[in-house]
Amino acid sequence: MNRILVIALAIFSLFTVAVAQEKTIAERLGYPRDAKLLIVHADDLGMAHSVNAATIKALETGLVNSGSIMVPCPWLSEIATFARANPGADLGLHLTLTSEWTSFRWGPVSPKDRVISLLDKDGYFYLTETEAAAHADPKQVEMEITAQIERARAMGIQPTHLDSHMGTLYQNKALFEVFLRVARNQKLPVRVAKTWFTRTDFLPATLKPEDVYIDRTLDINTEVAGTDWAKFYTDAIKHLEPGITEVVIHLAYDDAEMQGATFNHPNWGAAWRQRDFEFFTSDVFRKLLEENQIKLITWRELGKLIK
Amino acid sequence: MNRILVIALAIFSLFTVAVAQEKTIAERLGYPRDAKLLIVHADDLGMAHSVNAATIKALETGLVNSGSIMVPCPWLSEIATFARANPGADLGLHLTLTSEWTSFRWGPVSPKDRVISLLDKDGYFYLTETEAAAHADPKQVEMEITAQIERARAMGIQPTHLDSHMGTLYQNKALFEVFLRVARNQKLPVRVAKTWFTRTDFLPATLKPEDVYIDRTLDINTEVAGTDWAKFYTDAIKHLEPGITEVVIHLAYDDAEMQGATFNHPNWGAAWRQRDFEFFTSDVFRKLLEENQIKLITWRELGKLIK
Repeated sequence: MNRILVIALAIFSLFTVAVAQEKTIAERLGYPRDAKLLIVHADDLGMAHSVNAATIKALETGLVNSGSIMVPCPWLSEIATFARANPGADLGLHLTLTSEWTSFRWGPVSPKDRVISLLDKDGYFYLTETEAAAHADPKQVEMEITAQIERARAMGIQPTHLDSHMGTLYQNKALFEVFLRVARNQKLPVRVAKTWFTRTDFLPATLKPEDVYIDRTLDINTEVAGTDWAKFYTDAIKHLEPGITEVVIHLAYDDAEMQGATFNHPNWGAAWRQRDFEFFTSDVFRKLLEENQIKLITWRELGKLIK
Repeated sequence: MNRILVIALAIFSLFTVAVAQEKTIAERLGYPRDAKLLIVHADDLGMAHSVNAATIKALETGLVNSGSIMVPCPWLSEIATFARANPGADLGLHLTLTSEWTSFRWGPVSPKDRVISLLDKDGYFYLTETEAAAHADPKQVEMEITAQIERARAMGIQPTHLDSHMGTLYQNKALFEVFLRVARNQKLPVRVAKTWFTRTDFLPATLKPEDVYIDRTLDINTEVAGTDWAKFYTDAIKHLEPGITEVVIHLAYDDAEMQGATFNHPNWGAAWRQRDFEFFTSDVFRKLLEENQIKLITWRELGKLIK
């Protein structure tokens, strides 16, 4: 019995050492384990001129340092021109299977008759992620998101990462498996956060040790009043935990185009996006980063960990 | 010989009477032969929010009384909502086979792999009408314009007429024949003017007596300086000839969206469209119509002549 106990203790010790030695992704990137690392990420590039113009302006400040592009949207060419002129910009693809504004719509890159499970009665993507996920044939999803990546590359965009507009590709296990398979084939990191594991049980089961993901995302929510915008983000940044956080923001100007698109949809609407723009291009945000020793990193860095 | 001369004279007299009695389209509509009839027609609805907003505002003045809709464009849903709410509005379809702005693009309603002759390397319609016409397979054109009409009807638009964005469907005889065949099947009038017959020889050869067309179109041209806009239109309206004239205008606001789309294309650009909007919603234009006894008519009236 003593011999068995000794062996068991030895195995337990080795296991403990192994766990202790397992490097965090922050450490694998060369940062201390307690570093506070932040990606400031603007979604929805290509959607509208207002989104492109505000996001490009924000990227130029250096305070917003990452973004992702919606290939099926009408203003793709404008942002592709920016991407070609700024090959160092940290631009990924915001894989798109929904078209959420009622006045302003878009549809697939693939031939429509080959992805009919993705289309509503008017031939556009569904308005919501739940409708999209309920109807989507995973094979057609794979065809469409692959087509979006190929189209982006053909237009001179070299994506550094992938994420999913309105989270459609996280709606069920079959869609997430397609998303991961495509991302692994492309050797690109995907927006996945460890904090999501508790609420979405298929995530930890589907991921492999070699997949690269972050610790958490930070999103403002629909319960925050417009007047509390800066307070919400300020509090969140002051209390940022060590590890890698991605703050997911939506930039545009509160102008006629964006108001026309979002007239019946204040959440993520024109004024919402203007507020995000104002906070994340402000000196208040710049000082918060400095005062709280927060280091900005990009998906490009994370992507280098993928073999 | 005398008998032959008498017969010849009799035939000539009958012919002259027949010509004299042939009713103009104006007369067939119930107007005097010398009436000055005008359609004030705004192109490009559905293209952009700025175009929709300015054109809807102009239609509400009653001074602009007709327009046509681009089914493949991203803001179709917004103008379809207007069309459903205003079933009396004189709205046609601006059949679209080009996508002319470099930052802001659109493509076909049909599945892309079935209309590849209509697509550029990025999967959009060609930038120009000459490229579009040079590549277009007429069978694919027929499929696509039919799909545009069917999509419009499915979205609750009841078109009163058809025309062709950037005139692509007038670029050669094969395309024009497709256009006319589709229009006749739909029992819809097409933008064709008698004054075009001299410059496009296939037009009179292709048209049949039962086709309905107008006498002339009036377009401002790229040589008119911005400061001469009102002068150009004022002179043209003061000298309007009897018969049916369509003044073809392009309305939008000179705002960020339209500037973003047309940044490298001042012709038909944002400022151009704002100038058209200002003139055709002005009291100057209203008074010109009154002072020159010009009566506004619509394509809906013309369409009633089609059996």
